[in-house]
Amino acid sequence: MKAKLGWLVAMALVLGWGTMQMTQNLAADKSEKLLRHVVLFKFKAEVTPAQVQEVADAFAALPKKIDVIKDFEWGTDNSPEGIAAGFTHGFLVTFADEKGREIYLPHPAHEDFKKLVGPRLDKVLVFDYWAKK
Amino acid sequence: MKAKLGWLVAMALVLGWGTMQMTQNLAADKSEKLLRHVVLFKFKAEVTPAQVQEVADAFAALPKKIDVIKDFEWGTDNSPEGIAAGFTHGFLVTFADEKGREIYLPHPAHEDFKKLVGPRLDKVLVFDYWAKK
Repeated sequence: MKAKLGWLVAMALVLGWGTMQMTQNLAADKSEKLLRHVVLFKFKAEVTPAQVQEVADAFAALPKKIDVIKDFEWGTDNSPEGIAAGFTHGFLVTFADEKGREIYLPHPAHEDFKKLVGPRLDKVLVFDYWAKK
Repeated sequence: MKAKLGWLVAMALVLGWGTMQMTQNLAADKSEKLLRHVVLFKFKAEVTPAQVQEVADAFAALPKKIDVIKDFEWGTDNSPEGIAAGFTHGFLVTFADEKGREIYLPHPAHEDFKKLVGPRLDKVLVFDYWAKK
């Protein structure tokens, strides 16, 4: 009986330690340095909603094709301030470092994406930064 | 002795359960919906580096003054693509929801900040979106 309890103690302590490590790792992920890549699109007037959706879907498919993309999110402008300069679609791509961006920019999957989206754009803005708090 | 081991098991299990809950909460934080508020600044040519720094510091001080700011980061453009439209400073403010943004926009601390930064800007762009993956 004592031996059984000893095993239970050991197992529970390992469980506790392991999940504490996981917690610390998740917390560390939140504070590490990130290279952000902000991309804003304004589409040409003649581009259809289906063509816009095709672009958004193709962009959102890049993280599966390019493994240096650490994080990806996007959305459509809903600012009530009215100073978005006509941009309607925004994408936030995150790299771990400049090497990641160097791989991403000329990557064949990114080049294919640019061929799809380029002719549909009225204008594009790209702004990159190292995220500071 | 058996009673002592029993307590140890109980304590270790509580420890393990507690840290597992913390881990799950952190993971949940990462996947919940976020309202992003992208702000880009281009300063007037006559604005000094010290005045630019004062603006960045004042913006970075807002999260301590306005509690609906869930997350905040900023940085200066370092994109090699050269299509940042002259914007040099970018800020990413995150709210939990539109109510947070409604509180932020007319907040006295934000109004004070706008009074400081406004006269120093050549142009400003604001783009908000609900972050989708």
